[in-house]
Amino acid sequence: MTSTVHSPITPSTEPESVLALARQLRVDSIRATTAAGSGHPTSSMSAAELAAVLLTRYLRYDWGDPARRDNDYFILSKGHASPLLYAMYRAVGVIDEAELLGTYRRGGRLEGHPTPKLPWVPMATGSLGQGIAYATGIALAGTRMHDEPYHVWTLCGDGELAEGSVWEALDKAGLNKLTRLTVIVDVNRLGQTGQTEYGWDVAAYAARARAFGCKVVEVDGHDVREIDAAYDAALISDRPTVILARTVKGYGCSAVADSPEWHGKPLPADLAEQAVAELGGPSHLRVMGPGPLGADERDATRRRHVPSPTPPFVQAPTFEQGEKVGTRVAYGKALVALGEDQDVVVLDGEVGNSTGTGQFEEAFPERFVQSYIAEQQMIASAAGFAVRGWRVHAATFAAFLSRAHDFLRIASIDGPPIHLAGSHCGVEIGPDGPSQMGLEDIAMMRALHGSTVLYPADANSAAQLAVAANRLPGISYLRITRGSYPVLYPSDEQFPIGGSKLWGEGADDVATLVGAGVTLHECLQAARELAHEGLPVRVLDLYSVKPIDARALRRCATRTPLVVTVEDHRPEGGIGEAVAAELTDVPCLVRRLAVRDVPGSDTPERNLDAAGISARHIVRTVRETVTRATADSA
Amino acid sequence: MTSTVHSPITPSTEPESVLALARQLRVDSIRATTAAGSGHPTSSMSAAELAAVLLTRYLRYDWGDPARRDNDYFILSKGHASPLLYAMYRAVGVIDEAELLGTYRRGGRLEGHPTPKLPWVPMATGSLGQGIAYATGIALAGTRMHDEPYHVWTLCGDGELAEGSVWEALDKAGLNKLTRLTVIVDVNRLGQTGQTEYGWDVAAYAARARAFGCKVVEVDGHDVREIDAAYDAALISDRPTVILARTVKGYGCSAVADSPEWHGKPLPADLAEQAVAELGGPSHLRVMGPGPLGADERDATRRRHVPSPTPPFVQAPTFEQGEKVGTRVAYGKALVALGEDQDVVVLDGEVGNSTGTGQFEEAFPERFVQSYIAEQQMIASAAGFAVRGWRVHAATFAAFLSRAHDFLRIASIDGPPIHLAGSHCGVEIGPDGPSQMGLEDIAMMRALHGSTVLYPADANSAAQLAVAANRLPGISYLRITRGSYPVLYPSDEQFPIGGSKLWGEGADDVATLVGAGVTLHECLQAARELAHEGLPVRVLDLYSVKPIDARALRRCATRTPLVVTVEDHRPEGGIGEAVAAELTDVPCLVRRLAVRDVPGSDTPERNLDAAGISARHIVRTVRETVTRATADSA
Repeated sequence: MTSTVHSPITPSTEPESVLALARQLRVDSIRATTAAGSGHPTSSMSAAELAAVLLTRYLRYDWGDPARRDNDYFILSKGHASPLLYAMYRAVGVIDEAELLGTYRRGGRLEGHPTPKLPWVPMATGSLGQGIAYATGIALAGTRMHDEPYHVWTLCGDGELAEGSVWEALDKAGLNKLTRLTVIVDVNRLGQTGQTEYGWDVAAYAARARAFGCKVVEVDGHDVREIDAAYDAALISDRPTVILARTVKGYGCSAVADSPEWHGKPLPADLAEQAVAELGGPSHLRVMGPGPLGADERDATRRRHVPSPTPPFVQAPTFEQGEKVGTRVAYGKALVALGEDQDVVVLDGEVGNSTGTGQFEEAFPERFVQSYIAEQQMIASAAGFAVRGWRVHAATFAAFLSRAHDFLRIASIDGPPIHLAGSHCGVEIGPDGPSQMGLEDIAMMRALHGSTVLYPADANSAAQLAVAANRLPGISYLRITRGSYPVLYPSDEQFPIGGSKLWGEGADDVATLVGAGVTLHECLQAARELAHEGLPVRVLDLYSVKPIDARALRRCATRTPLVVTVEDHRPEGGIGEAVAAELTDVPCLVRRLAVRDVPGSDTPERNLDAAGISARHIVRTVRETVTRATADSA
Repeated sequence: MTSTVHSPITPSTEPESVLALARQLRVDSIRATTAAGSGHPTSSMSAAELAAVLLTRYLRYDWGDPARRDNDYFILSKGHASPLLYAMYRAVGVIDEAELLGTYRRGGRLEGHPTPKLPWVPMATGSLGQGIAYATGIALAGTRMHDEPYHVWTLCGDGELAEGSVWEALDKAGLNKLTRLTVIVDVNRLGQTGQTEYGWDVAAYAARARAFGCKVVEVDGHDVREIDAAYDAALISDRPTVILARTVKGYGCSAVADSPEWHGKPLPADLAEQAVAELGGPSHLRVMGPGPLGADERDATRRRHVPSPTPPFVQAPTFEQGEKVGTRVAYGKALVALGEDQDVVVLDGEVGNSTGTGQFEEAFPERFVQSYIAEQQMIASAAGFAVRGWRVHAATFAAFLSRAHDFLRIASIDGPPIHLAGSHCGVEIGPDGPSQMGLEDIAMMRALHGSTVLYPADANSAAQLAVAANRLPGISYLRITRGSYPVLYPSDEQFPIGGSKLWGEGADDVATLVGAGVTLHECLQAARELAHEGLPVRVLDLYSVKPIDARALRRCATRTPLVVTVEDHRPEGGIGEAVAAELTDVPCLVRRLAVRDVPGSDTPERNLDAAGISARHIVRTVRETVTRATADSA
C-alpha cells in the first residue's frame, strides 16, 4: 500500500514511486468517471505510466503560475482521456479531490473533454487529430520566434493517427525540425468500436513517423524505465520525437483490460470499487515535478522579447477615392502597416501572391510563416502563435478555409484571437470555376462562437477593418475580393466594427439595397439606374456582417417598404438571412438575391449577372416588386 | 514536324509518336489558356508525357460511352492543370479544337477546374488533395464490391502532398491494398509562390508513400520509356502504386520552364506563339487508346451486379407511440431496412455504436465500410461508391462532419447523391462538452448547393426520413439526437420532404413555437405549460429544415403575432434564420432561441436550460413578449 506516502514525488524519485503515482492516476480516473456516470476511464488507464513519468521527471511547469512563458506544454490530443489529465492536476495539487470527483458537473471546469476554462489547457481538444496540430503550432512558434526553450509534449491515441491532420502536423514538425516537440502515442490498440487500423503494429506507425522526419522510439508503455529513457532521448533529439508506446487499454483492472467493450464507459460502482481495490486503493501522492528551467536558462528567457498584450496604435494605409484597388491588395498593405508592430505574425497557405500576405512576406520575412497547402495546420499553427501571445493573421482562398472548419470550431471554444482573411470569394473570381469560389464561407464563419465577420467593398474600408481586426478577440474573418474596384470612401472615413454606411438616403426611397464587398458596387450601380427610372433607393454598405448594424437596418426598413439584399454567397447563412432575422417585426418585404445555382467559368461581370446578383437583376427586382405593390394597392 | 500525322496513335505506337502527342498536349495547353486569358499552362506542361503515355497505352476507356462500367478512371487531382485534361480530350476526339480554344468561356463545359459537367469527370477537383481521395474512394468501391477490374489513375501535384487528406487517402489505399489505384505525382518542384516543401527531393515523398503501404516507382517524368515501365509495374503491383515523376514546370518552352514566375499565368500572345513554334507547332494527332478490357474480362464484368438506378420501395421501421427511442436508433434500424436492397452501402467513421450504423454492420457486414477516424476520406469514399452507382449512407458525430466541409463543398458541385447523418448534435449530448457538440452543422449543411437537411424529433419520423433520403439527389443530411425521447407520431404518419407537422392549432393561439429534434419536445412541453397559463400556442415540427415548409410557416405567422424558433444550434444559419427569412413580409415578431454561449458539461436537461432553449425559456419568452405586447396596446 502506497496510499499514505506523504513526501512528494520528485524528479529524483525511485521508479516504484512513479508506479505508485501511475496507480493513483488510474484510480482517480476510475473514481472521477464513476462518480460522474460518464467518461473514458479505460482510455485514461492505458496512459497512466506515460503521464506519471512525464509529470514527475520531465514536464517543467510552475503549477502555481500557468502564465509563465518558460513553462512547458502538455496537450492532451486524445481529449477523451480527460480523467487522466484531471488526475494529473490533482497529483500536482492544482485541483482537489472534491473537484476531481465532481468532474463533468454543472458549472464545473472539468469538462468531458478539456477546454481552456482550465488555466493549464491552452486549446480545447476532443476532435481527434487536433491536439497534435496545436502542439506543433506552439512548438513552431517557439522555434521561429526567439528560439524559446519550452518543450511541447502531446499525448495522442493510436486511433487518431488515421486523421490526415496528424500527418499534416508531423510534416510541419519534421520540415521545421521542431526538436522541442514530443508526440507520445498511447497505442492501446482499441478504438471506440473495435481494433484500430493497425492495432499493436507499432512498426507501421514507426515507418510513417520516420518518413515524416521524426525520431521514433518504441517502448512498452507500462515500463517506466523504458518511458524514462524515451523521454530523455526526446530531449536531446535533433528532430521532433514520436514515442510509440504499446499499452493495454484499461490496464490495471483485469475485468476491463484490453476489452473492446469498455470504450467511453464509466465502471459501474461495484466494478469500480473492485478495480480501485485491485489498484491498491485511493492514494494522495503529491508530485513536485522539475519546474521550469534552471536559473541560467530562465535569465535567457527573460531577455527574450515578450509580445505586448496591448497592440500599438496603427495607422491604416489609405487610398485615393476613385482609384481601382483590390481589397486583397489593401489587406496586404494593412498587414505591412501592422507589421511595424514586431508582435504581428502572418501565415500563408502558399497563395500569398493571391491573398495579399505576400506583401508582408517581403517586408517582414522573419515573421512570415509559410504553411504550404495545408489549411488545417495553418489554423493550428496560427493558434499556436496566438497561444504564445503573438498577434496572428492567416489567409488563403475563402473556399479553402472550409478545409479547416473543424479546427476553427475547436479554436472558437475559448481559444486565443486568430485573424483570418479569405480571398477569391464568390462567383466574382471569374474563370477559375466553382471549386475556387468561396460561396459558403460567410455561413461557416458567422456560425462560429464569438466570431467577427467583415466584408469590405473598397480599399480604404478593407485596410481599416484589417487593422481593426488586429485588436479583436476570438476568430475574426475578413472577406476579400479578387478584382479591383474603385475606392468608394475618403481616406479619413471611419469603419467601426458593427457599423454600416448609408448611401443616398432620400425621403422618397422605395427600397433599401443592402450589399457588401463586390455587391455594394452592383447596388450603387443599380441605384443610379433606378434613380433615372424615377425609383429612388438608398444603399447600405453592410461591411460588418457580424456583428450586424441592426439599428441602421431597422431604420432603413421602417422607411422603405422593400429591402433587397445582394450577396456573392449562397442564400443560406449569409447576408440575406442575417438581415432578415433582424427585420421580422418591421413591416417590409426582404428580397434576397444570392447565388442559387452552380456557377461556371466566365468573366466576373458575366458570372455576377448569371448568378442573378448584378445591377441588372437588382434593378429588375426593385422595379418588379414596386410595380406589383403599386398594382396591388391600386 | 509531326503536325500532319493522320494515322491514329495506338497502344502499339512508337515512343516518338507518344512524344509527339506530349508536344501536342503542351501546345494545346498553351493555346487554350492564351485564348482564354486565364489558366495554368505551365502546370499542364510538366505532366504532358505522363498524360500521353497513359492515354496511349494504359487508360482503358471507351470515349464514346463514358457510362460503361468497365471504363478505367482518370482523375485530375491537380485540377488546375485542366488545360492538359482538355488537351487530352481533344486528342481522343471527344472535344474539338473550337471547344478547346473556347475554354473557360460563357456557358462552356471546359471550366477553370474540371467539373462533372463533363461526362468524363466523375467528381469536381480543384481543391487540392481531394482528387486523390475520390480516386481512392472509387478504387475502394471496385475492390469491395465484386472485385471490379477497372483501374483508377490519378494525377497529383507535389504541392498538394502537404495536405493531410492525401495521407488519409493513401492510408486507406494501403490498408485496403487497392492494387488498382495508381497515383501519379507530377513533382515539378514549384508551387504557386515558390518551391514546394521538398522540391525535387523525390526520396522524401518515396519514404512516405512506402510507409503508407504503397509501391513506389521513381521516374524521369519526361522520359516516356521510364513512364511506360512504371505504369506497367503499377498494373501488376500487389499494392497501390505511387509514381513519383520528376518533371520541369513549363517543360518545352524555354522562356518559362522551371520558373517560379509563371504559375497560373497564360502566356501572352507573342510568347505563346514562340512557345508553340518551339514545340513544333499545332498538330492534330488522334489517339486510339487501349479501350476497356478484353472480351473475357468484359464478360466477367457483365456478370457482376450493377446497382439499379431506381431504389426499390422500402418500408420504414415503425415504433410504438410513447415508447422512448433515440432517433439515432431509428436511423440505424432504417439503414437495416434499406439494406435489404443490395445496392445500399454504409460508411462509418469509427463511431457506429454511437450513430446507429453499427446495426447495419451487424446485418450486412459485406456492405459496411469502416473508415476509421478519417472523416475527409469517409466522405471521399462515400463519393467513390456513389460514383459507381451504390446508394451510400455515411455517418459520424455532427461536429466531426465539419472536418470534411471542403469535401462536401466539392461534392456539391454536381456530384453524386450522398446521404449523411450527424449524431450527437447540440448541447443535448450532455457531459461530453463543447468539442463533441454539433452546433454549426445545420449552417454548414444548409449552405451546400442542392442539399437537403432533415431533423426528426422522434423515431417514426427519423426512420421515414432516413428511408426517404435514400432517394434524394445531392447531399442529404439527417440530424440525429443522442438521447431517447418519446415517439410522438403514429407509425403510419407520413413525413414528406419539405413538409412540417402542426400541433395543437387553435383560433386563439398567441404564438407559434417552431422546433425540430430535441427542441420539439421542449416546445410541446412549453405549450402544455402555456395552456395552463391561458396562453394557447401552436407548435410546428420543422423536421424538414431545407427545403422548408414556407407555406405552413406563413400560415402560422399570419395567424399568431409571435413566432418563437427554438434550436439546439448556433443562432446563425440555422432554423431561426431560415424561418425569419421566409417571414419578412408577414407582420409578426420572430424570437429566436438558440445556443449563444460556450456550453459546458452537464446533464442534457440542464444543458438545454443553461443554453436558453428549454421549455422554461420558451414559456418565459412567450409570456414576456405577449405581456409586453398587451401592455403596449393598452
